[in-house]
Amino acid sequence: MGAPVLDRLRAALGGRVDTTAPALDAARADRSGHSSPTTPLTVVHAESTADVQATLRIAHETGTPVVVRGAGTGLAGAAIAGASEIVLSTLRMRRVLEVRPDDLLAVVEPGILNAELNAILAEHGLWWPPDPASRDISTVGGNIATGAGGLLCAKYGVVRDAVLALDLVLADGRLLRLGHRSVKGVTGLDLTSLVIGSEGRLGVIVGATLKLRRMVPGTPSTIVATFRTVRDAARGSAAVTASGAEPAIMELMDARSLAAVHALRRLDPPAAGLAQLTIQTDGRSAAVEAEQIAAVLREAGGTVTVTDDQAQGEELLRIRRSMHAAMASLGTTLIEDVSVPRSALPAMFDEIARIEQEYGIEIPTVAHAGDGNLHPNFIVQTPEIPERIWRAADDLFRAAMRLGGTLTGEHGIGILKSRWLAEELGEDQWQLQQDIVRAFDPAGILAPGRVYAPRPAQARGAEHPHDGEHPHDGEEPHA
Amino acid sequence: MGAPVLDRLRAALGGRVDTTAPALDAARADRSGHSSPTTPLTVVHAESTADVQATLRIAHETGTPVVVRGAGTGLAGAAIAGASEIVLSTLRMRRVLEVRPDDLLAVVEPGILNAELNAILAEHGLWWPPDPASRDISTVGGNIATGAGGLLCAKYGVVRDAVLALDLVLADGRLLRLGHRSVKGVTGLDLTSLVIGSEGRLGVIVGATLKLRRMVPGTPSTIVATFRTVRDAARGSAAVTASGAEPAIMELMDARSLAAVHALRRLDPPAAGLAQLTIQTDGRSAAVEAEQIAAVLREAGGTVTVTDDQAQGEELLRIRRSMHAAMASLGTTLIEDVSVPRSALPAMFDEIARIEQEYGIEIPTVAHAGDGNLHPNFIVQTPEIPERIWRAADDLFRAAMRLGGTLTGEHGIGILKSRWLAEELGEDQWQLQQDIVRAFDPAGILAPGRVYAPRPAQARGAEHPHDGEHPHDGEEPHA
Repeated sequence: MGAPVLDRLRAALGGRVDTTAPALDAARADRSGHSSPTTPLTVVHAESTADVQATLRIAHETGTPVVVRGAGTGLAGAAIAGASEIVLSTLRMRRVLEVRPDDLLAVVEPGILNAELNAILAEHGLWWPPDPASRDISTVGGNIATGAGGLLCAKYGVVRDAVLALDLVLADGRLLRLGHRSVKGVTGLDLTSLVIGSEGRLGVIVGATLKLRRMVPGTPSTIVATFRTVRDAARGSAAVTASGAEPAIMELMDARSLAAVHALRRLDPPAAGLAQLTIQTDGRSAAVEAEQIAAVLREAGGTVTVTDDQAQGEELLRIRRSMHAAMASLGTTLIEDVSVPRSALPAMFDEIARIEQEYGIEIPTVAHAGDGNLHPNFIVQTPEIPERIWRAADDLFRAAMRLGGTLTGEHGIGILKSRWLAEELGEDQWQLQQDIVRAFDPAGILAPGRVYAPRPAQARGAEHPHDGEHPHDGEEPHA
Repeated sequence: MGAPVLDRLRAALGGRVDTTAPALDAARADRSGHSSPTTPLTVVHAESTADVQATLRIAHETGTPVVVRGAGTGLAGAAIAGASEIVLSTLRMRRVLEVRPDDLLAVVEPGILNAELNAILAEHGLWWPPDPASRDISTVGGNIATGAGGLLCAKYGVVRDAVLALDLVLADGRLLRLGHRSVKGVTGLDLTSLVIGSEGRLGVIVGATLKLRRMVPGTPSTIVATFRTVRDAARGSAAVTASGAEPAIMELMDARSLAAVHALRRLDPPAAGLAQLTIQTDGRSAAVEAEQIAAVLREAGGTVTVTDDQAQGEELLRIRRSMHAAMASLGTTLIEDVSVPRSALPAMFDEIARIEQEYGIEIPTVAHAGDGNLHPNFIVQTPEIPERIWRAADDLFRAAMRLGGTLTGEHGIGILKSRWLAEELGEDQWQLQQDIVRAFDPAGILAPGRVYAPRPAQARGAEHPHDGEHPHDGEEPHA
């Protein structure tokens, strides 16, 4: 099948069809630390909507699976491609087509990086709020496809709150225009929201109309509070939320993650067991609000410092932002992403401590404490994740679900969490979601096997759930 | 078919199966001013999820269409029921199951009224932001099913921004739990968002986990500005938005609507042609912000008054809130609901003036100027809408679409706007949306014929688009 498909792609797309070894090799991996053992058929570097449509028409007619790829910064493996798959890269589609300060919207192509877009918007006094930790290296299209979050979500929302309309190419190459440019609109089903976070299963995002905000006036204030235990820090963050304060950022680092970052950045090691909250307030009353929050944190037993100096504040936040690098310095990381109701944060940290004990492992954890989203990190010294770690992760997910939480707050399901999906959704919803996917892509050529792993009945055990329908049959990245 | 269905319903649900004439008659209409010429089979007053499931199982097994109904305050006819249909009322399911100030959420049944819920939440210092003008008489379930908006949307969002999770009974009686209690969550497709605004086509909402806010501190300030023309008022509101101010409410009334309300409320008639903006700021800096906005409006040519007195502010807002009553006093109303990008508001008012001229009619119009959502009102003196008015409405919708807008900002499609839906969505998306509906309800028993009117090819003309698939075949409320 491969050769005729490649011939047709080359005839239609010329030099944008890339079969060089480095390109194919790069498409085997994302930032999850996992990779496909095989290489894809080709990478198509789409430069326009017409390129995307041409690629999909050929893929559709030849029944060739297609995996969409932006900057490859995903953390759940959705963009990892393998044998006989076409990788459709939208990284060259990076134009900003329109910026409208009067309507607080921008129309962009999917391949522009989040930080690049925000640099352009800043010239207009505007910004697009979603701020995943990867913002310097991840694309807007990827942010939308995963439903990304970030540090500012509790106050400024996630991607779902910041997209008005999407242009979507269906699996057979047809172009749909979803949503509208107006703030309000309830015309038919909300397919824009449905596509956000759909991880490449419903279509290829080739354009996005983004809902912007005006840049927040004033200088942010930054608060750092340390606590004797992570549970105390979690209680401190709950007290801040309960006080009615609305910090822009409220990040929690447990002792292990704090120690790892201090080591990486050659700072003095923190006292044993010390956990830290890093909080930022913004807007015209940032300083007043910071003092109110500081008082709440002192009352909660924290040791608190406050600064109105912006450079110093950024330096303090850099501790938190160095987390990924610190983890990578320790080994191969499985970054988890559970999200629980805010009140369950202390209980979730208790569960993490229990799992550490039971499995004899360390799980450095950071949390977006303002919205209850935790990133526990499993670190291993082998390229593959040992079965014991998968069992610990399984235990962790079940704990989050028991506490009213969810598998993934902002990274997505991809291939790494698909074995738990049916358990959270329930069998009926899991089947219904796949019926919806089939309505978009009846031939099933878009990212087959991702998100919805076959044979959910086995997902309850520790066995690998994938079966023959997956193009990586028997070759899962974590197998 | 009718008798055996009724027998089965009565056996399962006893006295909750209501076939009294007043109940059947009430279910023929909503607040759109339209009604079905026939009466439904029965009204089932569900008191629990189990009642809803039992009703749907029987309906599904007998192939009987089901129309869900809350308080019947819809403005697009989605809840209007006719011959051989079961009306499933959720009005008795009105419990508040949980209020969690720490997690800023509440779990409620669908039949509670928006205002009732907010009265309960106020005791906890909380509120649920969606505030349709119907808040005193409309249910939370109905607000969700239509994706309702209201006056506070530009600052505090619409229903879509304020729902975390939904319990949904499918057409065959199975119960799904969609979404999660956590703030963040991207586990699988976002079916919660898909169900919001789906107007009863995907399932029956039997429970909702709502995202709450803390009550805003401080006293609101109210600004009233009058302008010589509606275009000047629209430009004034655009200037407010452009200034970066974030008023909680910004309502625009044109001369005709202002005069009608003044007449209804026995106030002195406003000067000829005078249009009015009513703006409210809130929060701790409400008064300061109000003065800034007042300066912008004076600069834009407005005659401005500001008050920090809350009672006086409410009195001024009451002018705007009396709009529906004022229109009803003039005749039968077709309330339209187009939404355009904010910058297109002046141009949309130009289009309305043109249509008034061309069709020799008056179209009193109010607008949520903060978000570009307009409610032009067509007033007729007959119970049925004359064809000329439908043509004017058609012209209005096309104008809104040309300006980058949408058919409906917050009322929904129902039956009254279904003839234009395919035109806005495009044929491919229109078909895809129906494929998605079929994934939820393969037998097509939920609100058949609503939203997606058959034969879109005819929707471009002025003919009635419904055909034989609709239970009201040849009996459309507007026919």
